[in-house]
Amino acid sequence: MVAAPEKPILEQQPLSAEELRKIDAYWRACNYLAVGMIYLKDNPLLKRPLQPEDIKARLLGHWGTSPGLSFTYVHLNRLIKKYDLDMIFLAGPGHGAPGVLGPVYLEGTYSEIYPDKSEDEEGLQKFFKQFSFPGHIGSHCTPETPGSIHEGGELGYSVSHAYGAAYDNPNLIVSVVVGDGEAETGPLATAWHSNKYLNPIRDGAVLPILHLNGYKIANPTILARISPEELESLFIGYGYTPYVVEGDDPHIMHQKMAATVEQCITQIRSIQEEARSSGVAKRPRWPMIILRTPKGWTGPKEVDGKKVEGFWRAHQVPMGEMQNNPDHLKMLEDWMRTYKPEELFDETGKLIPELKELAPKGIRRMSANPHANGGILRKDLKLPDFRDYAVSVSAAGKEEVANTGLLGEFLRDVIKNNPTSFRLFGPDETASNRLQAVYEVTQKAWLANYLAEDEGGSLLSPDGRVMEMLSEHTLEGWLEGYLLTGRHGLFHTYEAFAHVIDSMFNQHAKWLDICKHEVSWRVPISSLNILLSSVVWRQDHNGFSHQDPGFIDLVTNKSAEVVRVYLPPDANCLLSVADHCLRSTNYVNVIVSDKQKHLQYLSMDEAIKHCTKGIGIWEWASNDDRDKEPDNPDVIMACCGDIPTMESLAATAILRAEFPDLKVRFINVVDLFKLQSESEHPHGLSERDFDGLFTQDKPIIFNFHGYPWLIHKLTYRRSNQERIHVRGYKEKGNINTPLELAINNEIDRFSLVIDVIDRVPKLGSAAAYVKERMKNEIIDNLHYARTHGMDKAEILDWKWPY
Amino acid sequence: MVAAPEKPILEQQPLSAEELRKIDAYWRACNYLAVGMIYLKDNPLLKRPLQPEDIKARLLGHWGTSPGLSFTYVHLNRLIKKYDLDMIFLAGPGHGAPGVLGPVYLEGTYSEIYPDKSEDEEGLQKFFKQFSFPGHIGSHCTPETPGSIHEGGELGYSVSHAYGAAYDNPNLIVSVVVGDGEAETGPLATAWHSNKYLNPIRDGAVLPILHLNGYKIANPTILARISPEELESLFIGYGYTPYVVEGDDPHIMHQKMAATVEQCITQIRSIQEEARSSGVAKRPRWPMIILRTPKGWTGPKEVDGKKVEGFWRAHQVPMGEMQNNPDHLKMLEDWMRTYKPEELFDETGKLIPELKELAPKGIRRMSANPHANGGILRKDLKLPDFRDYAVSVSAAGKEEVANTGLLGEFLRDVIKNNPTSFRLFGPDETASNRLQAVYEVTQKAWLANYLAEDEGGSLLSPDGRVMEMLSEHTLEGWLEGYLLTGRHGLFHTYEAFAHVIDSMFNQHAKWLDICKHEVSWRVPISSLNILLSSVVWRQDHNGFSHQDPGFIDLVTNKSAEVVRVYLPPDANCLLSVADHCLRSTNYVNVIVSDKQKHLQYLSMDEAIKHCTKGIGIWEWASNDDRDKEPDNPDVIMACCGDIPTMESLAATAILRAEFPDLKVRFINVVDLFKLQSESEHPHGLSERDFDGLFTQDKPIIFNFHGYPWLIHKLTYRRSNQERIHVRGYKEKGNINTPLELAINNEIDRFSLVIDVIDRVPKLGSAAAYVKERMKNEIIDNLHYARTHGMDKAEILDWKWPY
Repeated sequence: MVAAPEKPILEQQPLSAEELRKIDAYWRACNYLAVGMIYLKDNPLLKRPLQPEDIKARLLGHWGTSPGLSFTYVHLNRLIKKYDLDMIFLAGPGHGAPGVLGPVYLEGTYSEIYPDKSEDEEGLQKFFKQFSFPGHIGSHCTPETPGSIHEGGELGYSVSHAYGAAYDNPNLIVSVVVGDGEAETGPLATAWHSNKYLNPIRDGAVLPILHLNGYKIANPTILARISPEELESLFIGYGYTPYVVEGDDPHIMHQKMAATVEQCITQIRSIQEEARSSGVAKRPRWPMIILRTPKGWTGPKEVDGKKVEGFWRAHQVPMGEMQNNPDHLKMLEDWMRTYKPEELFDETGKLIPELKELAPKGIRRMSANPHANGGILRKDLKLPDFRDYAVSVSAAGKEEVANTGLLGEFLRDVIKNNPTSFRLFGPDETASNRLQAVYEVTQKAWLANYLAEDEGGSLLSPDGRVMEMLSEHTLEGWLEGYLLTGRHGLFHTYEAFAHVIDSMFNQHAKWLDICKHEVSWRVPISSLNILLSSVVWRQDHNGFSHQDPGFIDLVTNKSAEVVRVYLPPDANCLLSVADHCLRSTNYVNVIVSDKQKHLQYLSMDEAIKHCTKGIGIWEWASNDDRDKEPDNPDVIMACCGDIPTMESLAATAILRAEFPDLKVRFINVVDLFKLQSESEHPHGLSERDFDGLFTQDKPIIFNFHGYPWLIHKLTYRRSNQERIHVRGYKEKGNINTPLELAINNEIDRFSLVIDVIDRVPKLGSAAAYVKERMKNEIIDNLHYARTHGMDKAEILDWKWPY
Repeated sequence: MVAAPEKPILEQQPLSAEELRKIDAYWRACNYLAVGMIYLKDNPLLKRPLQPEDIKARLLGHWGTSPGLSFTYVHLNRLIKKYDLDMIFLAGPGHGAPGVLGPVYLEGTYSEIYPDKSEDEEGLQKFFKQFSFPGHIGSHCTPETPGSIHEGGELGYSVSHAYGAAYDNPNLIVSVVVGDGEAETGPLATAWHSNKYLNPIRDGAVLPILHLNGYKIANPTILARISPEELESLFIGYGYTPYVVEGDDPHIMHQKMAATVEQCITQIRSIQEEARSSGVAKRPRWPMIILRTPKGWTGPKEVDGKKVEGFWRAHQVPMGEMQNNPDHLKMLEDWMRTYKPEELFDETGKLIPELKELAPKGIRRMSANPHANGGILRKDLKLPDFRDYAVSVSAAGKEEVANTGLLGEFLRDVIKNNPTSFRLFGPDETASNRLQAVYEVTQKAWLANYLAEDEGGSLLSPDGRVMEMLSEHTLEGWLEGYLLTGRHGLFHTYEAFAHVIDSMFNQHAKWLDICKHEVSWRVPISSLNILLSSVVWRQDHNGFSHQDPGFIDLVTNKSAEVVRVYLPPDANCLLSVADHCLRSTNYVNVIVSDKQKHLQYLSMDEAIKHCTKGIGIWEWASNDDRDKEPDNPDVIMACCGDIPTMESLAATAILRAEFPDLKVRFINVVDLFKLQSESEHPHGLSERDFDGLFTQDKPIIFNFHGYPWLIHKLTYRRSNQERIHVRGYKEKGNINTPLELAINNEIDRFSLVIDVIDRVPKLGSAAAYVKERMKNEIIDNLHYARTHGMDKAEILDWKWPY
């Protein structure tokens, strides 16, 4: 596909002597800055000999990976200028920010955004001091770092983020440096396969640079310690053409890297051109670079007689104890002077003009590329009117619909209306989660091989907008990269296995939190929308391993400013919630909605009102007279989640039939955070509003979708908390029928009636009899389930009787 | 290393016609059983035409992968018999239990363990009916499955489990079938690199069989849709010699598989022999098999005119609607009859003798191998006396020690005393977490390449007992495999990144829960011990992304029968807790202990008493007189976790100095579940004991290590819950000093004093003044931190003053 270069790449000498001199000088400036950031709080230009008081009390940031990062950065800069490339830069290696912040500062972006870090001695001093200094920036490429869409604090997601950024950005090249430590993580190891989803016509390109510097904190890395043949095989196996750039002599390495990066860019352009001119989107062997350089390259060779450069000791800080060890201080000064700062910066501390001009200009600078501040490019979705997908509800609790099925129809038209800015992500479960209406307008992205049998309805296409890979990590990483570069999406997954991406969720929520509170120049991005379907209560047949509603517990630990949890009880509510989530920015929205058929309760108008309030009394299911006597009910039947809502309703029906005088107030919760105090979450009800709904002292039988104690956690500040009796999933499951699973966890209608009987004294003598009947119902139904393998028809077909 | 076979493997015909006929018949019996399990509840031998009432109401289990699983199983059986191999079998593909349960039943183990599933028609009927039937077994290789140590309900961990089982089991061969869906997950994609940690002398072997049947639920798989060259390259890159067995004609495939498995076993034996006779442990290219067969092999080719065999439609159940669709019913009967059950089973329903004898005998059966019921083989650790590692504490709160450093010394001797049954697992952080004393007696396992520079102290060795790879998934998987086969270990990791393995923890806890409650024949295994170090409060310098104490929140969602959480406040408590955990079985024990230097409080005797109770009043820090007046205190300072304990103590010191009349009771919690009610957790205090400690109504200022609301979740049943005022981490962090981070989250001494002032009315007029001083302290300390980059000496060096 790609013409072979005339000479073997590594014999080429693309840089003139002058270019070589300059690019090396620029890189020296980067390295000088990296060391300065790690060590200095003053004397940034070494205008006087270093003194202990110039050194920070605490030395942080990882020197080891930094020179390789900036080496890559400056070589990419050369090509950006030469070919006017639209490129961004992702740094995977942990704590490698010094290798990125250096070039970001040198190209001026840092000073533009943070004027006090100006391009002069004073600014440089502040720039050095702030690094990993209390109250200032961290040692990763945190949100404060211009040009970053990948913090790299937790390792493993650089490649999936890179591909996410490249999708639907045909002119963008996403360069991504992968640390060889990071490369050992599972998420990274499978993310290489993302190339099977990248369309050379429609999407941009990803240029991975695997940075083999050989060591992690205290160990060699696996990929640095397998044979060159195995290493090459591995990346051929992953579907790449690997180019190795290896060595330690900077001048030779500059030529090698310049030639190799140019080869890769040429190859990328040629692949794209061929695909775009022919209109045939096939998966090529994309190029990637294996950059093997010494760890802590250009740093001290030895410290105190021990090998440092090229060894794990160079991983973090080559030497410490700067305050008390004059030798170390001297060594630092000598080391910094090897970069010849006086040749790089003028008297005022500004990079000299001949180097300055090596960097790209304006938004071609990777640190100023708008793709890396995606909110700039983000456009609102062209959303169809969700009301058009409403299910008509003639009466509450009579008809059944698969809630996510309707959502699928809505998403179908979201995809249709937004053909280049919305994608749907899920691990092989789009149809299983009943979203298959989307296939009326699109297919699944697929750039791997096709077989004849695919004609038979495999729904694969290089142009598909549905992203399915059996890796929740990769999907979540893609979506994050896609959102961070200004687009939109929704990730849906089996509820239990959302835990696979717990840690990714944590990291993204933290990123958003910092953006919102500390980084005013970051323009809001679309929310990360997560739909949890195939929920715990309908995993009765998949068994215990598939039953875990605890992802939302995790969500409630994150800052109230960035997380939202919705449990719509029916299809119209789901549509209303989904519409809201797709319009929102800078949140993680978690929607919990099962895929099976469920009873419908609210008309679209009612649903919109209910979802807007987030919580409300369902008058039609209640028989207390709230208007007359607000504190009237004998018991409050509260519920949250589609299946618990049905069981609460069924229990209410039994109660109303058995105890006509019992005044029941029925409350449904859509927006989980309504339960929290307003002091803790912006959605939280005031105490007054909470008491208005729940009264101050009446018993509440709360039927919850998730682990019951989550409700206690959210309501612990509410009045008379001990009256809140919560049912939910308590890890009692195996292979069951739906009712059996409900009974085991006591969220079923019969158990709820017993709960009411146990807590409402006024029910009188009939209560004991009803309780006995409920117990018999439980026994009978369990017996039926175990003999017939299904629930009784009256359970399966239960409707709200009023 | 291995002599080439005389003929290319795939031209060999190792099976005689007779052997071929028998092995195929045995496999047909397996497939017959698989179909029977999925469909039938009666008429197991088809003695009469199938009727709708013979069919289960709900059809579950995945047919697609089953024939490949049993095909592999029967071919492994042949080699087990031929070479008297000690082998176990792990099934990675999801819902593939029918392909495993079949051969397990046929070799008699199932009936031995579950006598009602006898080897006759009646037993067979029950065996069929129970499969995925309410109240019975699931469609994965759940704990109920004899021979299973890997459920496979959540995908991704088969290979790491397999390696964990192989370590230190030199004679064991662990065969592991990897689904091509599963192979897309991150954890699986990196677990292939486990071969860099497998020592051919000391350890057993893993024989991976990648089962390429081409499809997941609704999609082709990546590995089935790349070129054969890429596929082969990938596994060469991973360090294996891949052997491809591909086809769909059973007779040809039997010969190919027989030859290939034999080749692999021969090669494994030869690798081991060479290493063991030479004494040189190097990493060879281990063999692996790529088995490419049609999905739903031998099943219906078409259903209703649509392709099924070899297509995604064969993934789950080839056809449904059996009750109403006579054609489908007929098709099922025809299909089952293609296996010719009348030739396989005698009149009574027992497998005929000539087939029966194909299976290995006794504990050579993979389903009866004791390694797969590891508790049988488990021996208690030879533990040194943990008291010998005690730090001597002359007075509480005076001296500082790195708590995990002492644990390292204890673990060093655990390793020394148990040279083949204990390993330490951590992602490149053993030294970082201060456990480096272990390197006095061992090194890090490493079978990848060595360089000359390793002489300089890289601590690598093929015999190392420390397992370090930058993949929490792989480590956790190894440890689980190691424990499940009867050994011991401890996994330590950065607290925040424990979330990477949230879902693995969930699955293991569920496995233990089922074993404890439902599977009496499973002998208890060692607990999974997880040490969370580098905790949130000392991630001030690594920043926000490294701050997340929520793993224990997740732990508290799991069954109280299997989870334990300990937060020892000092080194002696940590030793006592660790000793307890290493002796325990069938739990997940989570220990939270920071790696930095911390104040010491309790002598070893006191620590043992305190940890045995799990919670207690520290009289030396209290000034109420409990013996005289049990309800005496004005305030209860409670704390849990090393750093919160120090801050609570410092606050108590301030309170006692400022308000000499204030009666403070100081309570420390080691065992988190003591806070829960005894009705909810076996460790929970009775209401009476709780009130004895905390009184019924006095204000409690609870300083907690984790997210504060976890304490509310645990204590929601306690009396007057609203008096429990909890401080903890509330997502307020960035680059900070330790005190600054504490202040941001209000767990610091000054904030705690203010909390007391705000909640104890009797403090009088001095209170306002002290409160003002505390606020000033906060301002001053924040200012100092931001200017000096560290905390004030009086904070850094604070001691308990009494």
